Amino acid sequence: MSPSDQTTLRGHQIIGQQSLLADGKPVHAINPANGERLAPGYPAGGAREVELACQLAHDAFDSFRETDAETRAGFLETIAEEIEAIGEQITERALQETGLPRARLEGERGRTCGQLRLFAGVVRAGEWLDVRIDPTMPERSPMPRADLRQRRIGLGPVAVFGASNFPLAFSVAGGDTASALAAGCPVIVKAHSAHPGTSELVGGAIQRAVTRCNLPEGVFSLLYGSGNTLGQALVNDPRIQAVGFTGSRSGGTALLKTAQARPQPIPVYAEMSSINPVLLMPAALEARAEGLGQAFIASLNMGAGQFCTNPGLVLALEGEALERFLKTAADNVAASACQTMLTPGIHDAYRGGVEKLSALPQVQEVARGALDGDNASPCQTALFRTTGSDFLSEAALQEEVFGASSLVIACRDLDEMRAVCEHLEGQLTATLHLDDADIDAARTLMPVLERRAGRILANGWPTGVEVCQAMVHGGPWPATSDSRTTSVGSAAIERFLRPVCYQDLPEALLSPTLRDSTQGLPRLVDGKRQL
Amino acid sequence: MSPSDQTTLRGHQIIGQQSLLADGKPVHAINPANGERLAPGYPAGGAREVELACQLAHDAFDSFRETDAETRAGFLETIAEEIEAIGEQITERALQETGLPRARLEGERGRTCGQLRLFAGVVRAGEWLDVRIDPTMPERSPMPRADLRQRRIGLGPVAVFGASNFPLAFSVAGGDTASALAAGCPVIVKAHSAHPGTSELVGGAIQRAVTRCNLPEGVFSLLYGSGNTLGQALVNDPRIQAVGFTGSRSGGTALLKTAQARPQPIPVYAEMSSINPVLLMPAALEARAEGLGQAFIASLNMGAGQFCTNPGLVLALEGEALERFLKTAADNVAASACQTMLTPGIHDAYRGGVEKLSALPQVQEVARGALDGDNASPCQTALFRTTGSDFLSEAALQEEVFGASSLVIACRDLDEMRAVCEHLEGQLTATLHLDDADIDAARTLMPVLERRAGRILANGWPTGVEVCQAMVHGGPWPATSDSRTTSVGSAAIERFLRPVCYQDLPEALLSPTLRDSTQGLPRLVDGKRQL
Repeated sequence: MSPSDQTTLRGHQIIGQQSLLADGKPVHAINPANGERLAPGYPAGGAREVELACQLAHDAFDSFRETDAETRAGFLETIAEEIEAIGEQITERALQETGLPRARLEGERGRTCGQLRLFAGVVRAGEWLDVRIDPTMPERSPMPRADLRQRRIGLGPVAVFGASNFPLAFSVAGGDTASALAAGCPVIVKAHSAHPGTSELVGGAIQRAVTRCNLPEGVFSLLYGSGNTLGQALVNDPRIQAVGFTGSRSGGTALLKTAQARPQPIPVYAEMSSINPVLLMPAALEARAEGLGQAFIASLNMGAGQFCTNPGLVLALEGEALERFLKTAADNVAASACQTMLTPGIHDAYRGGVEKLSALPQVQEVARGALDGDNASPCQTALFRTTGSDFLSEAALQEEVFGASSLVIACRDLDEMRAVCEHLEGQLTATLHLDDADIDAARTLMPVLERRAGRILANGWPTGVEVCQAMVHGGPWPATSDSRTTSVGSAAIERFLRPVCYQDLPEALLSPTLRDSTQGLPRLVDGKRQL
Repeated sequence: MSPSDQTTLRGHQIIGQQSLLADGKPVHAINPANGERLAPGYPAGGAREVELACQLAHDAFDSFRETDAETRAGFLETIAEEIEAIGEQITERALQETGLPRARLEGERGRTCGQLRLFAGVVRAGEWLDVRIDPTMPERSPMPRADLRQRRIGLGPVAVFGASNFPLAFSVAGGDTASALAAGCPVIVKAHSAHPGTSELVGGAIQRAVTRCNLPEGVFSLLYGSGNTLGQALVNDPRIQAVGFTGSRSGGTALLKTAQARPQPIPVYAEMSSINPVLLMPAALEARAEGLGQAFIASLNMGAGQFCTNPGLVLALEGEALERFLKTAADNVAASACQTMLTPGIHDAYRGGVEKLSALPQVQEVARGALDGDNASPCQTALFRTTGSDFLSEAALQEEVFGASSLVIACRDLDEMRAVCEHLEGQLTATLHLDDADIDAARTLMPVLERRAGRILANGWPTGVEVCQAMVHGGPWPATSDSRTTSVGSAAIERFLRPVCYQDLPEALLSPTLRDSTQGLPRLVDGKRQL
């Protein structure tokens, strides 16, 4: 197909194949760099829009979940094509709405389409079905065994909450949406109010893909409105069967509480809060303190520190090598240019968090970056230090400051470093910088890190999350609300599935995926893997 | 080994390798048939016992979860051997404590040991590890790919609540315990107060298996006390990381609320409440109304109806064939002997539930079974009928009556039958009785049944749950608190695992299961399945 013409943004809710103008208070995007309000307004939806979208999603579910792998995979690929067809307009609008650099937004668009295609491959490969067949044993004594077949089906309509910091890869057509659609679940996205225009463009792409693939319209809707009213109403709707969320701890916790208080509680996959400890082991620190200091600040500054995996905590043993690390880090912080944060609100929270840390008697400021007084949402990089014993005694030191702020902890010895690790809340990542001479010490820390984090890295930096089969972007509370899963990578599809067992069903009532004659699907037959 | 001598019951808490006499109010088992109180008393544990058991479990976790497959599997097999070595004493005590028939208890002991051995096989097969390896791509542009490896590890110490209705297969060494231990999680069991002696015998078997296998003592503890105090304290303990429960809706919901209100919420797998609709499709009903009526009451009466999968609801079209079915069913109910229920409390709840149903104007009594006035906990089989429209308008008709009670719904037509299915809460099972001529009608019901139940059967009865790979003993709320899993069968192990990803870790720090050199483990390498 040829690229679409420039789309005029309309500020409408996308509900199935309809575009509706809601009548709530309009949401406007704000250009965070200059505080300018962007047209159009997006009047907030309410009970009527939630009702319409949920009913359509419910109506679409039974047929959508039984679409064959080729249809479902083709749909995901068509969404990617439609996003690519919009091309530059997405980047231009996202630039205005987020303040993120062009290269990052172009890369993120590629990642979003790549993610959709990854899930198309996942759907075709069929591992997600987890087909298990235990054939009948009519002669078994004392009781014959029935014919038992298991597959997994989608949970039902899923509510997805777009993230502020990934306007494409974790928003309207992001990882949560792609994995839920792959699982056969209709999706209703609550657009993040920071980037409604980007959301409308991507939502339109999905809407067109639904049409092109002849799917029931309720497979996708996109609503605008406040999290506290429209978002809560969505999670409370009995037709919604799961929730995907990426955002703040307070936002995720609020949705979780609502989901748990429903007459029928439902799963919430909230990716919320992580400070991503980085452990500089003694030999590695001694050998390359300066190189680590430089690389650390490069990771810290990436995307103005607005990554879930931003290195917000560094642990090392006190001493000369740590001071060398801090000196280089301080120089690099001081040389850090001022960046634009995603929204004025995120900037306010960042400034508040940095001020709170600064004011604590246990904390020393190491360095601050440049500040651009003309920027309406400036990120002025901040680096602090404290000691292991102070960290252990002051809970506030463990609070996430979303943005380029980090705290270095000087530990007395390895036992204290281990105690600090045990004291940490759940994390998305934990990183070890180590040399061969550090292996034995690192080995004693591994069990603690495994209990605390979903991903453990060596000699790298946690920012940069590969979208692949083995990725875990998840972790114990409060990193996420469900440590049993990942929100990035192919295993994310498993969040939206449940198993169903069929006992002695006539073949005419069995899904084709469960019939004996089925070819090419991985399955466990009598406990033995086939394919 | 030779069978142990008869063990003298002591009424002690089993905490690791210690046996402690608690100082709370003693719990006594009651022989439900005659109301007689059985020795010894089991003084209730409290904060001290919870603290001791949780600290031991926490201390054991890191080493237990890293035991190799052979050690872990051998441990499960040793538990089975130790249970078999106790032999008849378990049956004798369980007979007194539960009123269940001898053959059932012997069968259940076999099933319990079979379950432990099934999980030994699951551990050895290694699918549960879900090993995924995405090798490094150093030449990839624009960015090289890191080496990424995923495995799953245990969640942490698990609290298991024994069930009243399966004193062996879903109690101390039952399915929850076996699957949690298989996953590498230490287990603390809260014994059901209805069968403390049976629990002590089985707990001793596990305690000896821990010693024989040289495992850390905290791998297993067994506590006695009330659900409201000791049980709640256990679920509130920060070291507990998941909960397995089989019991009432109120009990499961209470534990779930506690688990969700913790500073760190944890997963609860509660199997709670199901009335297991059985749909008699028109052609099948016409062809074999009498046979179905007879088989129905046989299933209803099994174990005095005290199964999670008891057929508590029958749906059919009104008419002559349904009346024939009801006539035979009524005759079989009237001929039903009085059975002993598990506890006086369960009997009281059963009688209350039956009386409540009887009193509803929408409900007609079809038949009652025999009543033995000398039995202290009699189950007098009960059969009721109502209409589809009455069922749709009266929520109380959907409440589970635990015991041999069932309600037949005469539906006006297939649309009403379908509406009744849509109206149902989540179920463990849904059953279709059908002939070839019913296939088309059944096909229109399948999507509804799949949304409502974890297992769908044809031409059988839901009682009798095969322990195998393809079984799903789970279902949407309130059948269970988590429809994404099963509590029976090999997939139950997945409830107690979470994934961890290792990025660029030196081989010396990698679990042997993740090394390139590992042989014989199923894994996904670059998205392709090996083995």
